[in-house]
Amino acid sequence: MEAVGVVVEYNPFHNGHAYHLRAAKQTSGANIVIAVMSGSFLQRGEPAFASKWTRAEMALRAGADIVFELPYQFAVQQADTFAAGAVSILEAARCKSLCFGSESGDISKFHHAAVFFSQHEEEYQASIRQFLEKGNSYPKAASLAAQKLQKNEDTLDLSQPNNILGYQYVNSIIKQNASIKPLTIKRKNADYHDQSFTSDDIASATSIRKALFADEGTIEDISPFVPQSTYKLMLFYQKTYGIFHHWELYWPLLQYRLLHLKAHELSTIYEMEEGLENRFLAAALKADSFHHFMTLIKTKRYTWTRLQRACVHILTNSSKEDMKGHEKADYLRLLGMTENGRSYLNKYKNDLGLPLVSRISANQSAGLALDIKASRVYALATGLMNKKAFISQDFTQSPIIL
Amino acid sequence: MEAVGVVVEYNPFHNGHAYHLRAAKQTSGANIVIAVMSGSFLQRGEPAFASKWTRAEMALRAGADIVFELPYQFAVQQADTFAAGAVSILEAARCKSLCFGSESGDISKFHHAAVFFSQHEEEYQASIRQFLEKGNSYPKAASLAAQKLQKNEDTLDLSQPNNILGYQYVNSIIKQNASIKPLTIKRKNADYHDQSFTSDDIASATSIRKALFADEGTIEDISPFVPQSTYKLMLFYQKTYGIFHHWELYWPLLQYRLLHLKAHELSTIYEMEEGLENRFLAAALKADSFHHFMTLIKTKRYTWTRLQRACVHILTNSSKEDMKGHEKADYLRLLGMTENGRSYLNKYKNDLGLPLVSRISANQSAGLALDIKASRVYALATGLMNKKAFISQDFTQSPIIL
Repeated sequence: MEAVGVVVEYNPFHNGHAYHLRAAKQTSGANIVIAVMSGSFLQRGEPAFASKWTRAEMALRAGADIVFELPYQFAVQQADTFAAGAVSILEAARCKSLCFGSESGDISKFHHAAVFFSQHEEEYQASIRQFLEKGNSYPKAASLAAQKLQKNEDTLDLSQPNNILGYQYVNSIIKQNASIKPLTIKRKNADYHDQSFTSDDIASATSIRKALFADEGTIEDISPFVPQSTYKLMLFYQKTYGIFHHWELYWPLLQYRLLHLKAHELSTIYEMEEGLENRFLAAALKADSFHHFMTLIKTKRYTWTRLQRACVHILTNSSKEDMKGHEKADYLRLLGMTENGRSYLNKYKNDLGLPLVSRISANQSAGLALDIKASRVYALATGLMNKKAFISQDFTQSPIIL
Repeated sequence: MEAVGVVVEYNPFHNGHAYHLRAAKQTSGANIVIAVMSGSFLQRGEPAFASKWTRAEMALRAGADIVFELPYQFAVQQADTFAAGAVSILEAARCKSLCFGSESGDISKFHHAAVFFSQHEEEYQASIRQFLEKGNSYPKAASLAAQKLQKNEDTLDLSQPNNILGYQYVNSIIKQNASIKPLTIKRKNADYHDQSFTSDDIASATSIRKALFADEGTIEDISPFVPQSTYKLMLFYQKTYGIFHHWELYWPLLQYRLLHLKAHELSTIYEMEEGLENRFLAAALKADSFHHFMTLIKTKRYTWTRLQRACVHILTNSSKEDMKGHEKADYLRLLGMTENGRSYLNKYKNDLGLPLVSRISANQSAGLALDIKASRVYALATGLMNKKAFISQDFTQSPIIL
């Protein structure tokens, strides 16, 4: 038994993801796929459209064998920390390889980029600082600095979102001295940023969410682009909780928090840089919606994603102390597994690099406590129906076994 | 021109209150009535049924000449602090007398009680501690201790809610060495705790709210018990904001706060005694409603009112530091006045004991900042309609002038 790891959010799981899982097995030669998946809130600073349990089941029913939760401390973070957390989990789960989709599709370019930037670290950082001082956001500055340094080579295009993530995976593997082997496959059809459907059966998660959350949007509209199992789970989720989650449902809570917090309290929250507090507090008094709020706080200096992540941290009360300085995960939170996945974990149970958490006890680690808190806040978007059970699900739900 | 002061909540203003205002003038011989009124949240730890602006207008249209806001630091407090704040405001406003309704109706008994307890302070406190140790709540222990000490005399009955408040007014006047003269009138008909209507035109605020918030309750049902002006203002309020305020509307916000706060953060909130934090946090996970939450946290040791006040402080993020140690108000926040009231304030403007605040500037005192924050949170119960204007009303609303 050999495992390949994938790093995912499944928001929602779609046909492109199913393709990725098949290709990961094929490329790696592994017979087990382990997915490390963001929990209630995602890297872009958004609530996941459905709970981590439902998304884990979507994955298990369509090709994954084991799903671990990427802890909040790594999931709602910039790309380097996100990647570091994911790699540390897949390494601890004894994956032989990590297979990611990228715009490039050429793994040697990722290796070259990682080596190149580690050799030119000082130059690279200095160049990033220059571009930051010109008022660029960090990702923009990093991308411009990379272009400037590598201008004469056939190098990795670091303006592409999946190339950036892939670069960070490879970089984390090197930094953590991990034995896991990075592999990449070229993404099929859909662009990460596609807003509308451009193929008959493959669509980006962005375009699928857009259709789902459209005024007259229904689950039917997106059924061509997702596996039948995903489609059924979505119908069930809507019936059980009455909603799919999106930022506007949490706006009353975020606004409430911004109306009662003092600036010095807000400044303890992660990613609240100096000066941002007063901007947030003033905008909360004027905004009619989350989107309106975002347009009021947006500046060139900070990306939309970065500001959305700050909003998630405010919503979940995640402080600088909670979030800073974590280089590796310290537990494997099992969300679900297939029979094959269970056999794999049985085989490796004495060889795992981190404690396996399948039941939550009263005394949790600080990281796990954050995951639980995030899920409780996440549950509040639902109406009264089933809310109480949803709020406590981290304690009552056993790993899904298919 | 001479003023009599009254201490009120007007939740809502009703015919009994109109009677009280007429009787206050008659008994005192004053021609101006100054009301000091709780703002957005009340002494019992509840949101006021309508905004302080609307309740101030109710008072002005039915007999009061000036309405000042009792600051949050005093309003959402036990009786002694509540009374101390109110007396300090009426004294600063140069009232000659303070007229309160009581079950007793005999002012000499209040004087005697105040003198008696100041002379038996140590004995009284020791007796209270004994009753507390037997598991009684503080008000119950104080009442039992009072009964025990005064058993052979025809004394003030300190188990009656309005007698208790009156005693605290007289006590505060003595402690603050105020020149204001206490007067009392016997309360007419309705008992403070009446749950249903027992007269044709006088009913307790409790029974009026009960009718108003009943499943099929309408403003029509209570019209016999309130002045026509109150009735019209209530119709207008409902049309403008779509609701009357009650705890259940704030339950989602309170629950949210209890789901993301850590125990040590909760312990910084005023009135969160040791051990109460974990009780609150655990109950928030189980409760389906505010009422359900209250039944889960209630013990014999703490009164319902005391626990409700703690909930208000959590809701408004009011810390021990914010709330403790205030013996006198430090500003007169003008909510509204009649033409007569305006003449009075003009006459005394250079003789007021505290700064008069009729417009709020950016730099507020800590106390005023609390009032503003409380009103912002209070505004969140309304739907989208007019919410934004409501949230900022403390800055945009001029004192009402009739």
